[in-house]
Amino acid sequence: MSTLRPPQQHEEIAEFIRQEIFSGHFKAGDPLPSEAELCKQFDSSRGPVRQAMSTLRAEGLISSGRGRRSIVLDNTRTESFDAVFSVSAWLGALGKEPGQRTLWVARQPASSEIAEALEITEGDPIFSVHRVRSADGVPCLVERMHFPSEVGRLIMDFDTDSGSLHRHLLRAGVDFNNVSRVLTAIPANEEDAKALKVEEGFPLFRMTLRSYTHAGEVIEYADYRYRADQIRLGMNNVRGSSSPLWVEIPDQWEDNPS
Amino acid sequence: MSTLRPPQQHEEIAEFIRQEIFSGHFKAGDPLPSEAELCKQFDSSRGPVRQAMSTLRAEGLISSGRGRRSIVLDNTRTESFDAVFSVSAWLGALGKEPGQRTLWVARQPASSEIAEALEITEGDPIFSVHRVRSADGVPCLVERMHFPSEVGRLIMDFDTDSGSLHRHLLRAGVDFNNVSRVLTAIPANEEDAKALKVEEGFPLFRMTLRSYTHAGEVIEYADYRYRADQIRLGMNNVRGSSSPLWVEIPDQWEDNPS
Repeated sequence: MSTLRPPQQHEEIAEFIRQEIFSGHFKAGDPLPSEAELCKQFDSSRGPVRQAMSTLRAEGLISSGRGRRSIVLDNTRTESFDAVFSVSAWLGALGKEPGQRTLWVARQPASSEIAEALEITEGDPIFSVHRVRSADGVPCLVERMHFPSEVGRLIMDFDTDSGSLHRHLLRAGVDFNNVSRVLTAIPANEEDAKALKVEEGFPLFRMTLRSYTHAGEVIEYADYRYRADQIRLGMNNVRGSSSPLWVEIPDQWEDNPS
Repeated sequence: MSTLRPPQQHEEIAEFIRQEIFSGHFKAGDPLPSEAELCKQFDSSRGPVRQAMSTLRAEGLISSGRGRRSIVLDNTRTESFDAVFSVSAWLGALGKEPGQRTLWVARQPASSEIAEALEITEGDPIFSVHRVRSADGVPCLVERMHFPSEVGRLIMDFDTDSGSLHRHLLRAGVDFNNVSRVLTAIPANEEDAKALKVEEGFPLFRMTLRSYTHAGEVIEYADYRYRADQIRLGMNNVRGSSSPLWVEIPDQWEDNPS
């Protein structure tokens, strides 16, 4: 289901500059080489160089140029796409040892909330995995993942205590093309509280995530709950780029999730 | 201080497609026109078309192509750069009537926390504005904005009860080039609680924001606190694009802010 192809030139240029920034070779406040210099360095025409710059600007790594040299920004952290949908990949990138303890695994009929999220019919069979995840041995989030049966059957024989379920699914050829995330704050329910060793009602960050194939099929609906006192989020935004992070005041608030 | 220039072709193409998506003319699940068709439509070479596609992918508006037609994604909301650093612009984009009530305005010496954020010396004069902001008349956040004196003196004669302070500063030529945001959850303190009509300890989203000029000078440090039960955030991510939103577990947690 997944497609591999060699990177395009603009991707190679962007990745080169990204690594120069992350490694500290290009420092906050440094001007980047000029367009002409980058063209020469990469034996490239202006198109791919400009495309690379616009990618890095959208990621918040370099300033808006507007006819001037772009400058390397401060606080330039980004996440790989894998770190977005796999807790193991996320913790690994943070330099923390990922751990997991399975609370329960079930093949069950989809509730109305989960059916809606997976775009299937209520009562259709789904495969659910609830786990407590830890970073360097400290419990930091509860994950509840729900898969439609065609994906779920690929994890029937997977030991959910053994590590990255998503790596297993990627290896099995599942096409994780894009994800949509929503972040709210909620009080801990009984299961959350027990798993995270806090009182019921303790504030949690709740991130729900839907993963899609290239064709737009939903292949996962996940619900991550983090102790609100143990994580922080952030991003850079640059004039001339729209921000992919939206913040909204819902007209109708969803019911408190169980 | 700010620089205006005509949009480049890749920006025009990206903006055209963005508006086609936001207006509903291109719908979730629709394939985009092919690269060749877009080149013809915009009388463009492939470079600007590819650059536009990569921008839209980084914004989470279209799927990763990888040799196939890109598909319009669902939940495609993004924020303009202005909506990121101006609460008035943000509320306006949500279709809500922005309101503001000034709690206090002061020219004061910078505390150590604010001096660090503004990259100035503790005790240097700063200009601070605390306001309650409302959406359609409902209080939704407390904003605390701190400006170094060269920006602060531009608002000495501004009526902080009258509307968008950032529009005033943009008109005065202040170069808001890029911003860096950090999001945490904290309990309401006494001032927050009174302003937002909740009990002390009520969970709030706290967004701190630093604004920079192109040259990297910090021109604002703002602290926004939202009732956690009244907002949600979200974004799309696409394979092949890094996510500008980072999520981390701090090794050392900051002291509880006052």
